[in-house]
Amino acid sequence: MPIESLAACCAVPPEKSYLLLNHGPVTLVTSADGERRNVMAAAWAMPLDFSPAKVLLVVDKSAYTRELIDASGEFALNLPLRSQAGQVLAVGSCSGRDGNKFAAAQLTTFAAAQLTTFAAAHIAAPLIAGCAAWLECRVIREPHNERTYDLLIAEVLAAHADPALFSDGQWHFPDTARTTLHYQSGGRFFATGEAFVVPGAED
Amino acid sequence: MPIESLAACCAVPPEKSYLLLNHGPVTLVTSADGERRNVMAAAWAMPLDFSPAKVLLVVDKSAYTRELIDASGEFALNLPLRSQAGQVLAVGSCSGRDGNKFAAAQLTTFAAAQLTTFAAAHIAAPLIAGCAAWLECRVIREPHNERTYDLLIAEVLAAHADPALFSDGQWHFPDTARTTLHYQSGGRFFATGEAFVVPGAED
Repeated sequence: MPIESLAACCAVPPEKSYLLLNHGPVTLVTSADGERRNVMAAAWAMPLDFSPAKVLLVVDKSAYTRELIDASGEFALNLPLRSQAGQVLAVGSCSGRDGNKFAAAQLTTFAAAQLTTFAAAHIAAPLIAGCAAWLECRVIREPHNERTYDLLIAEVLAAHADPALFSDGQWHFPDTARTTLHYQSGGRFFATGEAFVVPGAED
Repeated sequence: MPIESLAACCAVPPEKSYLLLNHGPVTLVTSADGERRNVMAAAWAMPLDFSPAKVLLVVDKSAYTRELIDASGEFALNLPLRSQAGQVLAVGSCSGRDGNKFAAAQLTTFAAAQLTTFAAAHIAAPLIAGCAAWLECRVIREPHNERTYDLLIAEVLAAHADPALFSDGQWHFPDTARTTLHYQSGGRFFATGEAFVVPGAED
């Protein structure tokens, strides 16, 4: 069952949220400022620290998402599933300045269905239904990094996961259709592949 | 044939080096300062910019690698293959302060074979034989980021790839044994999985 509310998620302690991102999945970045909200695709997101949990995110200063994050100081990282690859490409191929990317008409290219959302616990940015996991983030203001490198540093306020996919600090993808995604370029992705444990390293 | 020299690599223009890292593979970080050299595993590495090409790398200030990078201002990101997962775990499980991690005796846990290296083009840090790709990097000094976040920003001076695995700006993993790796935790990895293109996005 795709997750459509926080109540259906399992909570991941922020200090364990790096386990959601360690394997380098592509993300959807959601943001909101007042009535304005947006979503973009970002491959350049990763953990920065365990506790307090922090993440890094690169967002070009020309992006509408950047305008909303700069105004609100908040964003969410949503980890899409393979079934959402069309939406990832679609939201990465247009600007929220040209139309509401949560409206179906904006995503007819590449995507069979529009993105639906549910409310986060600590931030105004919406969370995208049907994803594998979500990180609610608050920007730690670093004007030099933001201006010079388009680099955002944020604290992870809360993290949530689909309990069918992530539990006990580990991903358990049930089949090849339900895995996270890794972005290459130009509409090309990798699915997350076979999980394995190095011999001798079993817990 | 595992790559054992720069002559056997294909050159990847630095401004295209993000294509090597976009999908979030685990890296081996090599460093050198004078006669001292080291290797560590790092999942927290990603692109920062296209041109001039830059990367981000998180290295704890207690790490021997950090000492060598701080002293030399250089490091290489090596992208290991699945067959090297044991070495990745091994070098991530001990410190270069306790022994030379390029010597076989230091890697008997988890790893069947020691790491062999070849010379880079622009930096003193060695490159690890048999990897999928290599990025030669020079640190852009940002003392606040280094001190506060253990965050390194570096320019990519040169990039190289195994031509059997990467060509024309794309990965082409020939079989499931020869893919890059994605780190989870505690000896658990994912192989890079199936490559696919979103319908309608074909070049």
